[in-house]
Amino acid sequence: MSNETLEKLIDHTRQTAILASVDELLNWDQRTLMPKSAETYRADQITLINGMVHQRNTDPRLGEWLAELVDQYPADSTDDAAVTVHRLYKQYNKEKNVPARLVEEISRARVKAHSAWVGARETNSFADFAPYLETIVKLFKEKTEAIGFGDCAYDVLLDDYEPDAKTSEVTAVFAELKDGLVPLIREIGESKYRPDKSIIERRFDIAAQRKFGLKAASAIGFDFDAGRLDVTHHPFCCTVGPKDCRITTRYNENHFNGAFFGTLHEAGHGLYEQGLREDQFGLPPGEYCSLGIHESQSRLWENLVGRSKAFWEHFFPKAQSAFANSIGDVTLDQFYGAVNYVEPSLIRVEADEATYSLHIIIRFEIEQAIFDGALDVIDFPAAWNQKYVEYLGIEPPNDSDGVLQDVHWCEGLFGYFPTYALGNLYAAQFFAAAEKEIGDMDSQFRNGEFQPLLNWLRENVHVTGKSRSATGILKAATGETLSPAAMIEGLRKKYSEIYSI
Amino acid sequence: MSNETLEKLIDHTRQTAILASVDELLNWDQRTLMPKSAETYRADQITLINGMVHQRNTDPRLGEWLAELVDQYPADSTDDAAVTVHRLYKQYNKEKNVPARLVEEISRARVKAHSAWVGARETNSFADFAPYLETIVKLFKEKTEAIGFGDCAYDVLLDDYEPDAKTSEVTAVFAELKDGLVPLIREIGESKYRPDKSIIERRFDIAAQRKFGLKAASAIGFDFDAGRLDVTHHPFCCTVGPKDCRITTRYNENHFNGAFFGTLHEAGHGLYEQGLREDQFGLPPGEYCSLGIHESQSRLWENLVGRSKAFWEHFFPKAQSAFANSIGDVTLDQFYGAVNYVEPSLIRVEADEATYSLHIIIRFEIEQAIFDGALDVIDFPAAWNQKYVEYLGIEPPNDSDGVLQDVHWCEGLFGYFPTYALGNLYAAQFFAAAEKEIGDMDSQFRNGEFQPLLNWLRENVHVTGKSRSATGILKAATGETLSPAAMIEGLRKKYSEIYSI
Repeated sequence: MSNETLEKLIDHTRQTAILASVDELLNWDQRTLMPKSAETYRADQITLINGMVHQRNTDPRLGEWLAELVDQYPADSTDDAAVTVHRLYKQYNKEKNVPARLVEEISRARVKAHSAWVGARETNSFADFAPYLETIVKLFKEKTEAIGFGDCAYDVLLDDYEPDAKTSEVTAVFAELKDGLVPLIREIGESKYRPDKSIIERRFDIAAQRKFGLKAASAIGFDFDAGRLDVTHHPFCCTVGPKDCRITTRYNENHFNGAFFGTLHEAGHGLYEQGLREDQFGLPPGEYCSLGIHESQSRLWENLVGRSKAFWEHFFPKAQSAFANSIGDVTLDQFYGAVNYVEPSLIRVEADEATYSLHIIIRFEIEQAIFDGALDVIDFPAAWNQKYVEYLGIEPPNDSDGVLQDVHWCEGLFGYFPTYALGNLYAAQFFAAAEKEIGDMDSQFRNGEFQPLLNWLRENVHVTGKSRSATGILKAATGETLSPAAMIEGLRKKYSEIYSI
Repeated sequence: MSNETLEKLIDHTRQTAILASVDELLNWDQRTLMPKSAETYRADQITLINGMVHQRNTDPRLGEWLAELVDQYPADSTDDAAVTVHRLYKQYNKEKNVPARLVEEISRARVKAHSAWVGARETNSFADFAPYLETIVKLFKEKTEAIGFGDCAYDVLLDDYEPDAKTSEVTAVFAELKDGLVPLIREIGESKYRPDKSIIERRFDIAAQRKFGLKAASAIGFDFDAGRLDVTHHPFCCTVGPKDCRITTRYNENHFNGAFFGTLHEAGHGLYEQGLREDQFGLPPGEYCSLGIHESQSRLWENLVGRSKAFWEHFFPKAQSAFANSIGDVTLDQFYGAVNYVEPSLIRVEADEATYSLHIIIRFEIEQAIFDGALDVIDFPAAWNQKYVEYLGIEPPNDSDGVLQDVHWCEGLFGYFPTYALGNLYAAQFFAAAEKEIGDMDSQFRNGEFQPLLNWLRENVHVTGKSRSATGILKAATGETLSPAAMIEGLRKKYSEIYSI
């Protein structure tokens, strides 16, 4: 490498990544095992490191280097240097265009909105939260204008989490997905057959759950020499360094699914992080592509692998010996049915594989309408409730179990929700393509062989980092554009067996 | 506060302290639960944060501010501002006088010496280590010259760990201590009575050890809302923030003492950290006074409290119910005797309360002789072995169990060892003074009341921070100068009962 400016850029960015990784450790520690009285000083520590990261990311020298470099590298290349320059250029300009005044106002408004949201959940009244949410929405509209957009403000928001995605495309695909899911869920609901879900609500010893979860996470390839599994109320995955990916879960002695599929889910995120290029850590070619692609990896391992019949053909005997007193009397088919129970419900984070995406589509439609100007904040609950009735056939009895259930909006995370459902779509498309290339995955899973699938994902998804957009990775890996067909087909196949529909 | 320069100084120092506290977390995590493959990147993280701390500590503006401030505040005041200015001024000038070239050479030499030390321990040959240690000694002699000293180079080294202490004073007090300990230990050895130490070498369930240790640490006042206890091979205490003090211990299923007294020892360090002024965190009035004072707190709780008869009058029934199968058949007196077993041994970190200080005196005398020019590195083993025979009546059979046992010298930590024995002396003097003021401590301990002693230490030691020197704290708290009388008297009293001497 003989380009001195590029070297400076890379060196600067790598150093920033080290600082950001230290911030990850501060956050991980805070959420897992920090003593509770340490809260105040921890905030000072995080603020200081965050401030340094921000300062480095908005360093004017960065702008100068990027301006000099951007014309030297083709924008559509997947070459490391080109990807680095163009991704950083885009990010730098996006940040640069948002006035510091607006950044501060958003930061203050979030703190207030968060308190108001907590209070509104207690009083069960969206009206108490509405004025704060209105302020947040107003500020984010300002932000989209400061950054600039073509014909759709929401594109700017989406781009923060799903770079290069277009609202119009997502809208079209989600409409098609909805058209596939709504009748499927209705048919399941009308089926006479119901698995006995009480099986997974028996008593499962927590130490045994942890051990079994660790075994499964290891079996699918999560490297515990380069990661950990801890307990938190809100499970997450975070990366403290290229060989240090930490996942968490939470255990409920009276429910098997939460911790087990939560562990597989976070391990799926972790496998992606562990599969990113170590030599490019902190640089775009070594960073996750998008939240949608990230979620595709967690959903793929949680649902397409972990909720498959073949997976349990391998793991059920092990589960029976791990939880002899709980499921010694249960058959594989009963257990498989129970972990695949489908039931429209109010709370997104508790939703099953079939209904989950509809929760997301509702949020996406509301977000889009608000930034289109088609919906006022005050009308959120009505729009929300009406969509729940229409898509899922249930109506929230109150705001806390309805429009107030998620933390995202008071944080200003508009454009984030759709990535959850995009993850489901990408996952199904990757899974179908992998099957075509590596052969009968059911037989492999039945034998406890998950490495062929992981290898396929490593080569076709993980190693690419941000060198392609999400749909670019999809195209290269599957030959397809974004489509809900694979997902709907997969679900219909699974449920027609379980529910005899 | 109206002094703008002072405000800048304090603000700068507080920010540096935040960065240093982040480094503490990186280190704590590395030593407790970091995934093993994360080692390389962790080194990058620590190097970056360390570099930032160093840069801030040697920032020329700091020198300008301090030069402006130093004449505005009396040097002998215990006022916060005066203490802050004078302590930082001293530290800044000390660092400033050491050329960057020398700092780097020392750093490189330490890495090489550490490897050589590890190798020499394997081959059991001091000669393999000697040339590296010679280099280290040479560089530290250069360092003492760069910093400057009156008539004793060793003063400069001592000052890094025990600020303001003088070699001549320590020499005199250690000589007196040795004169008290050597005959005491001989008498114990000659006594016909031996406690049955096999009692504490029975099987003690590790989960029960942890629970019992936590209970004892809580009972003496360690605040687990502002701290943690974890497991590491080398126990330590570290402070991640003003309300975040983390201690560690290690468990041996076949030995009670190690983990239990280790926990009390580290909790004693932790009580000191938890008793420092939160409003002055990172500033000299809120920092521990010296390593000797720090060690006085750990030794006081470990030995003077934790190995007292009264302590076990309270805790022995609890120990019996925690370890019913191990010590259900043991009497209080038998147990008390076993935890106070005295036996000259080769390894410092395994030494008992009576012999420990002699291990330190040996190291101190050797260090002093080398910096005086009275001893060559190559003659270390001979000097070492001769002193072990003379003071403890035993001779190391090889270098690994002798002169090569400690990591300190290859790290260049000359002047560090004496603080361990100074801690024993301070502890005994504090303990005797506390007894005079707060009444019969034995009765208090017997009732599980440790708060009066802790309060006395908080008021007379902890809250002072670096506002006085170690001997200044001692004088203010006890009215005395440094003396081994209290320690010798205390040990003689204890062992005359246990060993009938």
